[in-house]
Amino acid sequence: MLLFRSLLRRIHDLSPVRMIFLFYFLAAIISTILLALPIAHQQGVQLAFIDIIFTAISALSVTGLSTITVADTLSTPGIIILAIIMQFGAVGVMAIGTFIWIILGKKIGLKERRLIMTDQNQTTFEGMVRLIKQIFLVLLTIELLGFLILGTYYLQYFPTTAEAYLNGFFSTISAITNGGFDITGESLIPFQQDYFVQFIHILLIIFGAIGFPVLIEVKDFLFSKYDKRKFMRFSLFTKLTTVTFLFLVVIGSISIYLFDMKGFFADKSWHEIIFYSLFQSVTTRSGGLSTMDVSQLSEQNNLFMSFLMFIGASPSSAGGGIRTTTFALVVIFIITYARGGNSIRIFRREVHEQDLMKAVTVTLMAIMVVFGSLLLISIVEPFTITEILFEVTSAFGTVGLSMGITSELTTFSKIFLMALMFIGRVGIITFLFMFKNNKQNGKYHYPKERIIIG
Amino acid sequence: MLLFRSLLRRIHDLSPVRMIFLFYFLAAIISTILLALPIAHQQGVQLAFIDIIFTAISALSVTGLSTITVADTLSTPGIIILAIIMQFGAVGVMAIGTFIWIILGKKIGLKERRLIMTDQNQTTFEGMVRLIKQIFLVLLTIELLGFLILGTYYLQYFPTTAEAYLNGFFSTISAITNGGFDITGESLIPFQQDYFVQFIHILLIIFGAIGFPVLIEVKDFLFSKYDKRKFMRFSLFTKLTTVTFLFLVVIGSISIYLFDMKGFFADKSWHEIIFYSLFQSVTTRSGGLSTMDVSQLSEQNNLFMSFLMFIGASPSSAGGGIRTTTFALVVIFIITYARGGNSIRIFRREVHEQDLMKAVTVTLMAIMVVFGSLLLISIVEPFTITEILFEVTSAFGTVGLSMGITSELTTFSKIFLMALMFIGRVGIITFLFMFKNNKQNGKYHYPKERIIIG
Ligand SMILES: [K+]
Ligand SMILES: [K+]
Repeated sequence: MLLFRSLLRRIHDLSPVRMIFLFYFLAAIISTILLALPIAHQQGVQLAFIDIIFTAISALSVTGLSTITVADTLSTPGIIILAIIMQFGAVGVMAIGTFIWIILGKKIGLKERRLIMTDQNQTTFEGMVRLIKQIFLVLLTIELLGFLILGTYYLQYFPTTAEAYLNGFFSTISAITNGGFDITGESLIPFQQDYFVQFIHILLIIFGAIGFPVLIEVKDFLFSKYDKRKFMRFSLFTKLTTVTFLFLVVIGSISIYLFDMKGFFADKSWHEIIFYSLFQSVTTRSGGLSTMDVSQLSEQNNLFMSFLMFIGASPSSAGGGIRTTTFALVVIFIITYARGGNSIRIFRREVHEQDLMKAVTVTLMAIMVVFGSLLLISIVEPFTITEILFEVTSAFGTVGLSMGITSELTTFSKIFLMALMFIGRVGIITFLFMFKNNKQNGKYHYPKERIIIG
Repeated sequence: MLLFRSLLRRIHDLSPVRMIFLFYFLAAIISTILLALPIAHQQGVQLAFIDIIFTAISALSVTGLSTITVADTLSTPGIIILAIIMQFGAVGVMAIGTFIWIILGKKIGLKERRLIMTDQNQTTFEGMVRLIKQIFLVLLTIELLGFLILGTYYLQYFPTTAEAYLNGFFSTISAITNGGFDITGESLIPFQQDYFVQFIHILLIIFGAIGFPVLIEVKDFLFSKYDKRKFMRFSLFTKLTTVTFLFLVVIGSISIYLFDMKGFFADKSWHEIIFYSLFQSVTTRSGGLSTMDVSQLSEQNNLFMSFLMFIGASPSSAGGGIRTTTFALVVIFIITYARGGNSIRIFRREVHEQDLMKAVTVTLMAIMVVFGSLLLISIVEPFTITEILFEVTSAFGTVGLSMGITSELTTFSKIFLMALMFIGRVGIITFLFMFKNNKQNGKYHYPKERIIIG
């Protein structure tokens, strides 16, 4: 226990970025080893090493892109291992992300904040442990509920009780961690007509993608006494990310429908239209499960979905991409700038200029990364630009949707996608700080001079 | 004369943005009327109104995208009208752009600066008139040289002297204004093997695209006495835009070659490789003339060229796009931010934060405009995403290259492209200021609160 604490202290002394790298590196090795175990495979199945490591990274980054069909290759122990990797991947980065958030002085609900502010050094650490516990608790509670509801409901679909509950278990984990893997062999397509199953999955995906600080604040709010409640205020972060999230879901659904009004949706009933478009919109937030083959949609719809996936989920969630808050700040930034205003105000709060700079940097950097990847992968692959862009944004947003080309990609592209899943998952800002040099750079100043822009 | 001066004063009192709009609006009407005149057409040719106005806007914005084949539709007077429209379009916005630059307090060479600083109100106006004269003088000198050299050289190509010099005249105007129209019916493809013609055109395109302030500063430098010369310093703007321009040309050429090393360039000799890739790289800076059918290149090469066209030419030049300086600042901004530095330094000068904000806004806004246009146009057109993206960035960068779909587009798309050519030409920052509201917006402040980004 003392040894463990001392080890924890050492890890704690690492920079947050190094911590994430260390976590990822070790977790990737362990996950790959576990998935390579013969017991994880069905009898007679031979997997290439690149596919094992791709699956491990995809599960760990809770992306769900897959070069294999899980249902045809992994055994029941293999499926459970995969679920554990997803769980670990979702909680791991979420916990570390939340921790970074704390040490950067951002607040995370009222109780946590008071606790942390008592003694910075000691309680940051205590607070972190406590928070990881809270994350686990919230997740496990929802997961248990999901497992019981889905598992029991699935009894009508599967021949044995064991199969029903295995599916309920895996499906719940895959949805709430935003892992996006499936053991049906065709995602949620078998439940195309079952709106109950879809509804539960939509809820689970949103829980995973809306951001852990939001869940904590809502939990604090719901479980605090009435007289205290009126003094509580949701943080600007919670408000902004929730509004943006819901806005994207609604606009996404409507647009996905409109783009294929005369195509895929032409012969669908109103309730089919609502559930197909809503599910596909929600899943681009980072879920990755799907109730249809997305390549059935038109090319411009896939292009639009690529845009949605590029944005991705909320920060400190199980999702990836540039994140909802980044997108919101960039849009607000442009509008305010165009209108000649100087400071950005949302919900009666001003946004820090530093945050704006971050949002803008993240977005521009992400566009470069995605466009560069698209260009390079398109050289070696025979697929269309739209198919490759869809795959690239899906990896970067750790969404896991695909137009069906993942398993046919070359090893070069698979390695590229693994890197994108990693960058998308830890967040481009964290990734950027890899290159941050520590030598002081702002001590002396040159004269300033104006430049003509655009 | 008094009336004219009073009119000029009134125009001068308009905001720069309104001035550009007024200029554009009037010029567009006049250009369309001129091109609609029967004398401008070859006998028996009937043109749709949308094609006439598209040609007028394309010439006025010196883009060169065309829904008609000039050689088969316009008469000799029509060709001369087209050349005049391009000349007017190039000088007009360039002059107004330079004027805006002056009243924003940016310097434009040493003599001009001293002159303007004597008396702000009076000499800004005088300075403007003087500058437009200078622009005309520099342009006309280079044009006269180009006309004489090309016209005389073309005698070997064309049956009559008149035809040779008409081609020399039009070709010179089209290259230096970056207009990009041709009267050969197939751009510079007839001169595929004539490196002299290509070299002259490369020079002319660069003169038009490198930015007028650069030309003025270089002229000042070359024509000042030796003892004064050592005290002269090129402005940060000139250094940055020139270096970026040349960097893009070199990297562009190499990349264009590498992308099709095993394709288009596989059977080419070393000098063909150099001239094909160099010409296509230079022309994406905004020229629009081409020595080959760009759709012969691979899809990823066209995608890469779309990226180059999106960047476009230098500010205050005859070109469009986000502009070279914008691109340079964005790249430097990201690198510096990632390395943790606070201020951006180039050539021993610091960049204004306001300029950085501008660069970033322009880029993000431009990406939205281009992506939005791509999405909308792709709904109504049967062409591939790459073909449409190429067309859209070509219009936005006022480049005028096309994979050959321009004439087959619907009226909806043509109107869209016209808007893009306009936005690309006046610059997105000017376009943004259309929406700028004048009411004070920064007087009171809300509390600031941090937000998690990416
Ligand atoms: K996912
Ligand atoms: K052009």
